[in-house]
Amino acid sequence: MTVARGRQFFQNPGPTNIPDRILRAMDRPALDFMGAEFRAIAEECYAGLRKVFKTDQAIIAYAGNGHGAWEAAIVNVFSPGDKVLVPETGYFSLNWGKHAHELGLEVETLPGDWRTGVDPAAVEARLREDKKHTIKAVMQVHNETATGVANRVAEIRRAIDAAKHPALYMVDTISSLGSMDFRMDEWQVDVVVGGSQKGLMLPPGMSFTCASEKALKASQSATLPRVYWDWRKLVTGNRQTAFNGTAPVHLFYGLQEAVRMLAEEGLDQVFARHARFAEATRRAVRVWRGNNGPEIYGTDPRTQSNSVTTVLLPDGHDADKARAIALDRFNVSLGGGLDKLDKRVFRIGHMGDLNEPMLLGALAAIEMSLQLAGVPHGKGGVAAAMEYLTSVD
Amino acid sequence: MTVARGRQFFQNPGPTNIPDRILRAMDRPALDFMGAEFRAIAEECYAGLRKVFKTDQAIIAYAGNGHGAWEAAIVNVFSPGDKVLVPETGYFSLNWGKHAHELGLEVETLPGDWRTGVDPAAVEARLREDKKHTIKAVMQVHNETATGVANRVAEIRRAIDAAKHPALYMVDTISSLGSMDFRMDEWQVDVVVGGSQKGLMLPPGMSFTCASEKALKASQSATLPRVYWDWRKLVTGNRQTAFNGTAPVHLFYGLQEAVRMLAEEGLDQVFARHARFAEATRRAVRVWRGNNGPEIYGTDPRTQSNSVTTVLLPDGHDADKARAIALDRFNVSLGGGLDKLDKRVFRIGHMGDLNEPMLLGALAAIEMSLQLAGVPHGKGGVAAAMEYLTSVD
Amino acid sequence: MTVARGRQFFQNPGPTNIPDRILRAMDRPALDFMGAEFRAIAEECYAGLRKVFKTDQAIIAYAGNGHGAWEAAIVNVFSPGDKVLVPETGYFSLNWGKHAHELGLEVETLPGDWRTGVDPAAVEARLREDKKHTIKAVMQVHNETATGVANRVAEIRRAIDAAKHPALYMVDTISSLGSMDFRMDEWQVDVVVGGSQKGLMLPPGMSFTCASEKALKASQSATLPRVYWDWRKLVTGNRQTAFNGTAPVHLFYGLQEAVRMLAEEGLDQVFARHARFAEATRRAVRVWRGNNGPEIYGTDPRTQSNSVTTVLLPDGHDADKARAIALDRFNVSLGGGLDKLDKRVFRIGHMGDLNEPMLLGALAAIEMSLQLAGVPHGKGGVAAAMEYLTSVD
Amino acid sequence: MTVARGRQFFQNPGPTNIPDRILRAMDRPALDFMGAEFRAIAEECYAGLRKVFKTDQAIIAYAGNGHGAWEAAIVNVFSPGDKVLVPETGYFSLNWGKHAHELGLEVETLPGDWRTGVDPAAVEARLREDKKHTIKAVMQVHNETATGVANRVAEIRRAIDAAKHPALYMVDTISSLGSMDFRMDEWQVDVVVGGSQKGLMLPPGMSFTCASEKALKASQSATLPRVYWDWRKLVTGNRQTAFNGTAPVHLFYGLQEAVRMLAEEGLDQVFARHARFAEATRRAVRVWRGNNGPEIYGTDPRTQSNSVTTVLLPDGHDADKARAIALDRFNVSLGGGLDKLDKRVFRIGHMGDLNEPMLLGALAAIEMSLQLAGVPHGKGGVAAAMEYLTSVD
Repeated sequence: MTVARGRQFFQNPGPTNIPDRILRAMDRPALDFMGAEFRAIAEECYAGLRKVFKTDQAIIAYAGNGHGAWEAAIVNVFSPGDKVLVPETGYFSLNWGKHAHELGLEVETLPGDWRTGVDPAAVEARLREDKKHTIKAVMQVHNETATGVANRVAEIRRAIDAAKHPALYMVDTISSLGSMDFRMDEWQVDVVVGGSQKGLMLPPGMSFTCASEKALKASQSATLPRVYWDWRKLVTGNRQTAFNGTAPVHLFYGLQEAVRMLAEEGLDQVFARHARFAEATRRAVRVWRGNNGPEIYGTDPRTQSNSVTTVLLPDGHDADKARAIALDRFNVSLGGGLDKLDKRVFRIGHMGDLNEPMLLGALAAIEMSLQLAGVPHGKGGVAAAMEYLTSVD
Repeated sequence: MTVARGRQFFQNPGPTNIPDRILRAMDRPALDFMGAEFRAIAEECYAGLRKVFKTDQAIIAYAGNGHGAWEAAIVNVFSPGDKVLVPETGYFSLNWGKHAHELGLEVETLPGDWRTGVDPAAVEARLREDKKHTIKAVMQVHNETATGVANRVAEIRRAIDAAKHPALYMVDTISSLGSMDFRMDEWQVDVVVGGSQKGLMLPPGMSFTCASEKALKASQSATLPRVYWDWRKLVTGNRQTAFNGTAPVHLFYGLQEAVRMLAEEGLDQVFARHARFAEATRRAVRVWRGNNGPEIYGTDPRTQSNSVTTVLLPDGHDADKARAIALDRFNVSLGGGLDKLDKRVFRIGHMGDLNEPMLLGALAAIEMSLQLAGVPHGKGGVAAAMEYLTSVD
Repeated sequence: MTVARGRQFFQNPGPTNIPDRILRAMDRPALDFMGAEFRAIAEECYAGLRKVFKTDQAIIAYAGNGHGAWEAAIVNVFSPGDKVLVPETGYFSLNWGKHAHELGLEVETLPGDWRTGVDPAAVEARLREDKKHTIKAVMQVHNETATGVANRVAEIRRAIDAAKHPALYMVDTISSLGSMDFRMDEWQVDVVVGGSQKGLMLPPGMSFTCASEKALKASQSATLPRVYWDWRKLVTGNRQTAFNGTAPVHLFYGLQEAVRMLAEEGLDQVFARHARFAEATRRAVRVWRGNNGPEIYGTDPRTQSNSVTTVLLPDGHDADKARAIALDRFNVSLGGGLDKLDKRVFRIGHMGDLNEPMLLGALAAIEMSLQLAGVPHGKGGVAAAMEYLTSVD
Repeated sequence: MTVARGRQFFQNPGPTNIPDRILRAMDRPALDFMGAEFRAIAEECYAGLRKVFKTDQAIIAYAGNGHGAWEAAIVNVFSPGDKVLVPETGYFSLNWGKHAHELGLEVETLPGDWRTGVDPAAVEARLREDKKHTIKAVMQVHNETATGVANRVAEIRRAIDAAKHPALYMVDTISSLGSMDFRMDEWQVDVVVGGSQKGLMLPPGMSFTCASEKALKASQSATLPRVYWDWRKLVTGNRQTAFNGTAPVHLFYGLQEAVRMLAEEGLDQVFARHARFAEATRRAVRVWRGNNGPEIYGTDPRTQSNSVTTVLLPDGHDADKARAIALDRFNVSLGGGLDKLDKRVFRIGHMGDLNEPMLLGALAAIEMSLQLAGVPHGKGGVAAAMEYLTSVD
């Protein structure tokens, strides 16, 4: 076997590229997590996160991954038997719903097309039907990491409002936060779930819930048992003031650097960069589509994700074979297909600390891997991406 | 204010000193946590942990801190209303019990002396009384981080056996693992709780439960709701084979290095070193005791901890004042008193990657801080520690 | 101005990409450079270097850069007024000659074509003329970093032999070592000059001379004043046994990792990889040549370098403008033109720890920069490189 | 053999403790040393160095160690046969003189007592004798790293002035810079030699010369051959504007952090801290002196060094035995004796990034090592150091 050389191109849709600055900031001894120095670091982190989540409400950080924050979001606002509506958009929406179900909720899945994302009108229609307001919450992912489809969060907010339904609006931003615009307060999202390892450019191991005033109020009467995730222990007013146990101080070191980096570049610039790289990626895939080659899984241009592109291979071709070539021969790591998309797609993460040559190098390796794997495809995907990237500012 | 210079002496009883080797091992990009490279790293970690926990049973790692593992231990083996016996030994034993209570268990606290630790005979007596075996488990900490008292786990095992009681034996090793001998299998401990940030010399953010066959069986019928911590999703046979969500790969990088370091030194040598440094610390404190000075909080030589020494100040003296001097003037970080010991004690962590001059430098700074804080004390504590350290091999 | 994001593509022909492993190995406290631990590290380094230089003769490491090793090579074997022959191949050959001249030697430059490299026949002819053997040495660079032309060292050796001339053969391998095959002993090179910051993948600051038995003998009678560089103080037998002053221990830490990495991959594989990437680069440039675009500066396929490709822009186009775009917009750092090639060329380093997507990402950024700089060029250079890289094994 | 655990206490008098901040700053990819980013870094470094050297004259940085800067100082201002006066103070003064001799100078050693340092009156007397001003320079070390004796630079300046002698005044500050006050301009030092690896807290591999206007003028007519070190190539006006070859960019990264750290603390505070720690060390040694134990090598309180204390063992005791125990058993690295002091002394470096517990931990390990090595000594050295450190502010 060949020894891998050079830096791995880590194009998984999470975890993602961690900037050297962040790794170095984390390469530091521990400190007293009850002392003044840590408090100052944490304060800077929360202030930075408020800008990223676009909220002035409560942000609660956990030692835990995104699934931990999923659990936190559920156990804090619900009681056993509560009913939630989960618009189906793919693996992660279904799994968050399954998580809720296993914790004792009644979960109603609103069927949806994995390739286009949530239809706000369908949400509105379903909520209008729910005259008795038995549905306590709408739970959905902002960006379906598995399909590369980004839901229209603001429009769904409007759909809920149009239905005059009091359901809590809960949104998982794990693979969108820091990559695509998200506005907790403006969009009146009640519970937000976020993670460290994608747009925040950190290692996995830290996750977040944000809670609106309405959500905090709901948590007072919610009866699902909880301690580790319990907002009531962690939040004073609308600020996190405690940790259950030891704070993950190293992730705070990294987060401090991450929010500084996001502020330096400017969130709008960050989002524009992600949009640009996503479009470049899509242009490449559209060329590959020639000759009956792979295609973009997401079919609605309005909902194609700016953080991950899922690429559907033509029937009869194993996506994992191409992925293995990309990894073994070119040191490029791609995401695989999940659930029913297993072996049918690969996923290109283009989020976080990325620049043009990183993206183009990865796309080039993918195009070569398609060739070597014998997957039919149109040639010139990289060239199309380059053409696009020189045409925009 | 003075600018701190030199390396901080981090004598908190957790997190603790992280060796440079481990920090450097973690200073690395992310990788695909579903890929072969990560699997190999994880396998090495679990194999190493089996030696540290002295078990061949299931070890389940979490993205979460020790309180997360507390919760995992509880939700996996209990049903609402189950009764547990919690021998009181201090802040952490009480809090684990409180955690269980808040999750819906009936918690009976077995009163105990914080300064001496659990009396095995009292456990035996209480269990003998429980003819109907309503007590489902004995939950206790191996080492009380708050008091510096280490419970006699093997003797308590024998007490349970002597009472012929089927209760699960659950032990929190967070501040003992890797510092003091612990033998899950030999001592027939059913559920073990461990954390990354003490004897394993890692940053906080990773924690562990170990589950005996009996515990895994109990988890099949336990009905507390759970998903994130659920052994049933994570364990195949008696090995962890899955993660709920993204694995904390950086902590695995560090853990790989940690288990290598423990193996290089040899666990017996590691424990002997901790015993030596703990005794040196105690000798210093005993000298300080002169002149009505501070004393070792733990009064029973059999249970004085080898990982942390809690030092009780004479009445009328604020331990936090001495701690603040140690930190601000000498860059030495000590643990403070918890709960009813607030301001009455400081705690000296002497666990993990420590050597003689690190310990003696810290003890010297403490002795000077006592002086500067106006705390009466006998002089020559450091000299006594030095005397001891030259007298042993 | 845009904030640079993502990792810089550092395609300078030196210093070059330093693998994370090496940076981490250097991120370590100092140690006693006279102690056993350092000696063991140094021994491993020298053993590794002997494989890279393909020699069993003396290798002397210095705290200094390549120009320091140039000076060391000169002052150790010559006396004031000695005459040397310097085949002209570009900026660096001329400068080494100038260096010798300024130190008091008589330097005869053998005129040569910068775009093709040294003609061995011309060397032979000149040496044959030198009946009295007034020429003490032939000094030449293996690889001209400024032009991307690699001289045929073995053939020049044969030319010297054919002329039956006793001149020392001195070769600068600074930008070839570890990237292209070099065989000190087989090719009977008497003095070799090398540096840390290119094929050895280290930071700049360490350099090497190797000395054959003949060279060591010459050093005994050489009278140029010298202390810092003096082999007589540093070498016992044919091994370096001393340093003048403090050894650059951190560069040794890095070198230890570097020789391990070279051994892991295997030198032959390392050279093959460099050859492959150089050819891919050339294929790209040949496409750019279309439409009266840039061309490869080196015109003789036998001497086109495998570590750096110098690209000559069409008249009237400023290479630095394209470089600036590559740097400012795409975070890709390229080398500029030196001396008479100032602004006329840019240089693509493709040496060291490089893989396909790194190279292709850089080539893509260059192709886009040509476009944005308004430099005429054929499109599809990257595609040609990809085509080549999929066609070879 | 025991596996070393914990952080090594690196009490060598150079290299010395490198702060984590500096190591992390150096743990960074290379960059274009001809580009704007590096120029900005270098500018900040030079500005910081001017404050440390207390000069507005030329500072020239080299890839090289202190011996390199020794050579640079010599070759830039002298011509073959020039005569210099070297006041003898120990190993390093003699070696710098020897260096000059080997480069072709006439070196007159002014005999002196190694234990007290240069007698300014003797310098004045000798210079007064030199009516013809054949002595071109006085070359001396500020701090004798080998003996722990710090010469009185300002007083020697006054002695030269009193003798109305035009000799250049050249001072080696390698082991004083950043630890003890040095004022190039105020003290009218013409050539200063400095290194990276002591008070500047960097790895070895970078060194400095500073040149006064007078020295730069001397360099114009000096005829010793030189290229690598040649100020004429490197300096424009009185600023370094070029490097011979590739700049050691990583050392500049570190230097940037170092000058920031020195500025944060404030030079006066840095010097005060060194004075305090040196005095604490001396108090410890004075206690050890009891019972016919070791003594401070420097006998004149006016010249005992604040950066290194050399400790002379009683006759019949091998200092290296105690050093070996300190290293092998306590992971404390001390300096050994040089030249005629071999095995008779050990040296305690107390320079750079040090705090009280670091110093006291080291002193404790030394006191224990004396005990274990069977060296007679008074007990309580550490206690005396502690007493002192609590008594001062």
